[in-house]
Amino acid sequence: MKVFLSEEEIPRQWYNLAADLPTPLLPPLGPDGNPVRPEDLSPVFPMNLIEQEVSDKRWIDIPEEVLQLLYQWRPSPLHRAVYLEKALKTPARIYYKNEGVSPAGSHKPNTAVPQAWYNKQFGIERLTTETGAGQWGSALSYACALVGLKCKVFMVRISFEQKPFRKLMMNVWGAECVPSPSTETKTGRDILEHDPDTPGSLGIAISEAVETAVADTTGKTRYSLGSVLNHVLLHQTIIGLEAKKQLAKIGEKKVDVVIGCAGGGSNFAGLSFPFVLDKINGAQIDIIPVEPTSCPTLTRAPFAYDHGDVAKMTPLLPMHSLGHEFVSPPIHAGGLRYHGMAPLVSAAVVEGLLTPKAMNQLKCYESALFWARTEGFIPAPETSHAIAAVIDEAVKAREEGKEKVILFNWSGHGLMDLKGYESYMEGRLTDYPLPEEDLQKSLKSIENLPKPKVAKTGRW
Amino acid sequence: MKVFLSEEEIPRQWYNLAADLPTPLLPPLGPDGNPVRPEDLSPVFPMNLIEQEVSDKRWIDIPEEVLQLLYQWRPSPLHRAVYLEKALKTPARIYYKNEGVSPAGSHKPNTAVPQAWYNKQFGIERLTTETGAGQWGSALSYACALVGLKCKVFMVRISFEQKPFRKLMMNVWGAECVPSPSTETKTGRDILEHDPDTPGSLGIAISEAVETAVADTTGKTRYSLGSVLNHVLLHQTIIGLEAKKQLAKIGEKKVDVVIGCAGGGSNFAGLSFPFVLDKINGAQIDIIPVEPTSCPTLTRAPFAYDHGDVAKMTPLLPMHSLGHEFVSPPIHAGGLRYHGMAPLVSAAVVEGLLTPKAMNQLKCYESALFWARTEGFIPAPETSHAIAAVIDEAVKAREEGKEKVILFNWSGHGLMDLKGYESYMEGRLTDYPLPEEDLQKSLKSIENLPKPKVAKTGRW
Repeated sequence: MKVFLSEEEIPRQWYNLAADLPTPLLPPLGPDGNPVRPEDLSPVFPMNLIEQEVSDKRWIDIPEEVLQLLYQWRPSPLHRAVYLEKALKTPARIYYKNEGVSPAGSHKPNTAVPQAWYNKQFGIERLTTETGAGQWGSALSYACALVGLKCKVFMVRISFEQKPFRKLMMNVWGAECVPSPSTETKTGRDILEHDPDTPGSLGIAISEAVETAVADTTGKTRYSLGSVLNHVLLHQTIIGLEAKKQLAKIGEKKVDVVIGCAGGGSNFAGLSFPFVLDKINGAQIDIIPVEPTSCPTLTRAPFAYDHGDVAKMTPLLPMHSLGHEFVSPPIHAGGLRYHGMAPLVSAAVVEGLLTPKAMNQLKCYESALFWARTEGFIPAPETSHAIAAVIDEAVKAREEGKEKVILFNWSGHGLMDLKGYESYMEGRLTDYPLPEEDLQKSLKSIENLPKPKVAKTGRW
Repeated sequence: MKVFLSEEEIPRQWYNLAADLPTPLLPPLGPDGNPVRPEDLSPVFPMNLIEQEVSDKRWIDIPEEVLQLLYQWRPSPLHRAVYLEKALKTPARIYYKNEGVSPAGSHKPNTAVPQAWYNKQFGIERLTTETGAGQWGSALSYACALVGLKCKVFMVRISFEQKPFRKLMMNVWGAECVPSPSTETKTGRDILEHDPDTPGSLGIAISEAVETAVADTTGKTRYSLGSVLNHVLLHQTIIGLEAKKQLAKIGEKKVDVVIGCAGGGSNFAGLSFPFVLDKINGAQIDIIPVEPTSCPTLTRAPFAYDHGDVAKMTPLLPMHSLGHEFVSPPIHAGGLRYHGMAPLVSAAVVEGLLTPKAMNQLKCYESALFWARTEGFIPAPETSHAIAAVIDEAVKAREEGKEKVILFNWSGHGLMDLKGYESYMEGRLTDYPLPEEDLQKSLKSIENLPKPKVAKTGRW
């Protein structure tokens, strides 16, 4: 069972949680420990996106041209998971937004497309970015093809070699994709000189992408990031805003539980932030970001100031962080292996608005398989974390005999991730709960950084 | 730009072209040259589907339970290809049905799901089938998971080895997939004994699947086919019936050109047959099935009686055929490499209702890449044949200065077919136009079979 919205019914504004957090967001800090000013970011991002990044306006208009571009796959359908409900014999009603319908197969184009459009408006001709497993790199490649920008993706070398299909998607959309570290940047060359066989890392790839953007002396190149930052989460809120309209359309007045998987935080925020607003205004809703036990940023790491990358090229962000030197175990949910978490999601956790949970890999694959055999659509490994939590909540509702309404974000399909399913079905996978001593060791990298003071400070 | 239908607006009957063909369909013939009776087919198919196969009713009700199952992804969106139109500077308005939104990523579940449901209703517990590249095998696996049947797929060995992801999709949905020839059937063992290294063929896989179904002495196993037969095409007509409602919704009163790629004929028939009815009733529409030049069934082969498989296990079907011993060159559009064509599509060609075209592989990939970089969604290699024809028609409309309405079936996505794109982008692909002497040689296999007399004969 599905609910569509017509294009005329699409939300025309994004929702900015920064406007409603009881305690205002803390500013990012520069290397000198002082707040970063918007103009400091201008070599990296175009000014129109920096304005969104620092905005405290509650509603931000979606330009008509961006809506036209989003119509290529949005509004996305809201499904009711009737087959899962039946299989679980739960009285809960389970709804999900199917973000797998986008050309790239995930929620990522929701921000890739506006980012490409704003860059184009600003006169930019080329975007650079990094990608791990390739979800973000392919989404940005698609967006650049759509609006007419060049696109260069630095893909973590081990993924570049192990996941050739994601690279091929980028090529099909006309983007250039090189393994990172590459010989094209100083960062890359330095690393290759010392360690020619390095598998690469997201931290290195970010550094290469930023270096490439900043190095273009014509000023026509910028960098683009697929999660964590405020403007990225802002663009994703169209998911939750659509969901609200769809639920209203079928007469669902009240949502009890909202769930999304959380890596950098963007798909979770996209669905949940409009409901966080309801919660701030007094509604009773459990809002659950779900992360892997192997990378327990929200459930076990402190709220701190930390760098977004290993090479410490980014400003210090106020966020939950396992430490920028954290190396995640090789779980298949590559999108959930980030050491930090979006500042807006972190702040909402600090405010007590969210109830984070962590899930083991095997339970997630078990849930993904159960899902595929009831609801049909094969989920991405990241999405399976949300599904595992949904099943727990549905079983709880059955045990309590409660007719709960559960809403979650089906963030993407797993058609490019079938190797992980194969390993699971053949019994070759394992769990990687993070040992306490590894956590403590990793947290040492943030020990000497400035500490956030959670107080009613001003904005940047 | 897209048009959705709500679930309430879905068509509630399938359309059966057999009721409206000016000359009634010729019957299939048995080994003795006499028409096959419905009961002869009952060891292979359940009686409720055989009734559909031989029906001459114009409209056949879709059971409410089947509609509920189809709601998992239907109604599928109708898109207007605004970016392609702009890139081609054409005055034509180009619309396409996006059948890539199904869990299996193609139009195949439109018949897999009803077939599984009718078998379940008939008390069947297990289905067998064959698959080449894996589109059909994965669709039937999904359908069996949805309705609760066991599923066994014989996959052509070379594809089994070269395309492990399609096999993994089947496994995720709980189906068993074995390489064909296998040691599990007499057919398979005989072939392996003589040629242990055979790459397999669709003909062998069909024989193994039918043998396995018939061999189950409990009578609880049947065989399922993904194209060619009347009931398969019937189920696909939901595509064209939805398209008509969607076009009406946005005020498009007249379609000028209808296009679909054609292998066995099911996706083409699914979109086009409701428009063929309009044409029979006097409307001016160009209706174009598009096939590869390497497998030119409709454009160069005769209308004849021929077997559906190499092993001659199937009845003789009245159809355009390159001869059942035809071996197609290794083009990437695996779904278009069949030697025959659905009898209903063939009959419509004989009646002059369709205008078949053939396309070269390189032009199809060029069109697919152009499509991906304008419209975003990456098409399957089969679908790219339709796209190549659409581009030709759109350019013609520009040259003629005509505001034509072009509608086509975007039959599936190409996310499991990226290796073909890689070969094309690296310049490693070639065209395979069928040499006349090869055609003549292949046609020898039908020389001594009964010849169809196209006349007002009765039905079976």
